[in-house]
Amino acid sequence: MSQEAVTAALLVIGDEILSGRTKDKNIGYIAEYLTNIGIDLKEVRVVPDEMDEIVAAVNVLRKRYTYLFTTGGIGPTHDDITADAVASAMGLELYEDPRIIALMLERLKPEDLNEARRRMARIPRGAEHVANPISKVPGFMIENVIVMAGVPSIMQAMMDDVAPRLKTGARMMMETLEAGLPEGAYATPLSDLAKAHPDVIIGSYPSFQDGRFRNQIVVRSKDGAKLQAALTAISDMLKSLQH
Amino acid sequence: MSQEAVTAALLVIGDEILSGRTKDKNIGYIAEYLTNIGIDLKEVRVVPDEMDEIVAAVNVLRKRYTYLFTTGGIGPTHDDITADAVASAMGLELYEDPRIIALMLERLKPEDLNEARRRMARIPRGAEHVANPISKVPGFMIENVIVMAGVPSIMQAMMDDVAPRLKTGARMMMETLEAGLPEGAYATPLSDLAKAHPDVIIGSYPSFQDGRFRNQIVVRSKDGAKLQAALTAISDMLKSLQH
Repeated sequence: MSQEAVTAALLVIGDEILSGRTKDKNIGYIAEYLTNIGIDLKEVRVVPDEMDEIVAAVNVLRKRYTYLFTTGGIGPTHDDITADAVASAMGLELYEDPRIIALMLERLKPEDLNEARRRMARIPRGAEHVANPISKVPGFMIENVIVMAGVPSIMQAMMDDVAPRLKTGARMMMETLEAGLPEGAYATPLSDLAKAHPDVIIGSYPSFQDGRFRNQIVVRSKDGAKLQAALTAISDMLKSLQH
Repeated sequence: MSQEAVTAALLVIGDEILSGRTKDKNIGYIAEYLTNIGIDLKEVRVVPDEMDEIVAAVNVLRKRYTYLFTTGGIGPTHDDITADAVASAMGLELYEDPRIIALMLERLKPEDLNEARRRMARIPRGAEHVANPISKVPGFMIENVIVMAGVPSIMQAMMDDVAPRLKTGARMMMETLEAGLPEGAYATPLSDLAKAHPDVIIGSYPSFQDGRFRNQIVVRSKDGAKLQAALTAISDMLKSLQH
């Protein structure tokens, strides 16, 4: 249990998310994926397709967490500036990787390999590819920054490709209890239990459906025995209140 | 068109989003809502239920944008620390608002108004309520910070309550063109058109379904005439390529 925590941030790059035109599907997917492999997602930011904004966020987040994942902005159009922004943030130069050109020529006629498409072959020197089995053009990993596509199916394939190369920590385990009571009825004893179980993270999550609240208590820990002890204590507390 | 831009950031507070347990439904809703009323959402952050993280994000975001909206962390349990964090960030104190106690007593017996539930009546001095028609306990607005619930139906009702009180700017209008071509085929002429139409934001958005890419070009502007001019130019460009 003394294993070092491995942390991550996610930077979602895209005007289309901020305008509401596109509803993000990547945050929830990546959050769940990282949790399952023992990487703790600690922060998410969504920024527009603006160089200064992306550069600033990349530099804060890559220094603060074990890994920084980005989604979006790696296509051939003028609004795709993620590779340039990441290179600029890290003080690196982009070069046209002939291996990416070769991958592109698996799908394109040579006469269709125009200047815009060649932009997608530009990655920082020293970067590793993050394979894209769908449309071939890879993302990349440079130091602790992983640059992925924004299209969900491609991003998901890229996560599968890069995940085996990542350091991982102890997996956060999670159990959910149905409270069966209003939050206000158990908030004080739950707070006492949260203090008594310091290696366990206890959250209470209301949802509202069909005119009724349903409250769930979620208990998380990297230590299975401590998780079970907290679960038992919370379950006993809820039973005592239900009588 | 010289109307001042009104900007906003959204701070989503919640371990449950970062762990992937809960899939956020508020970012997309708020993004679309603000766009529709003439407020430009410029940044979103998701942070855990940790005081220092919330305080730091509140202070950066409230100073940088016209408005800061928060979601989550305003219930009665120990992990609900948003009101404390916002007050701390702004150097304000919380007080128990008797008007909120009265609202709570519309739904609760006096003997059920325990210490944990009373926590939900604590707001910064000078804050206005943001009404919650569903479970009564309001959010609040203090200076330019709007604190809302995380439960989507309650957050949505709170947006409806607070929106008429907000400054709004010119509405960003948006039109979408089906490209009908691979992105790489139109990226260079589209980039030229983006440069030629500086008051218009042009984005190209691929999606991938059933083994095929579908590319949409989205044109946004606060100036209807400039939007139409750009649309016509892009449409002509696409037609010229399709021949």
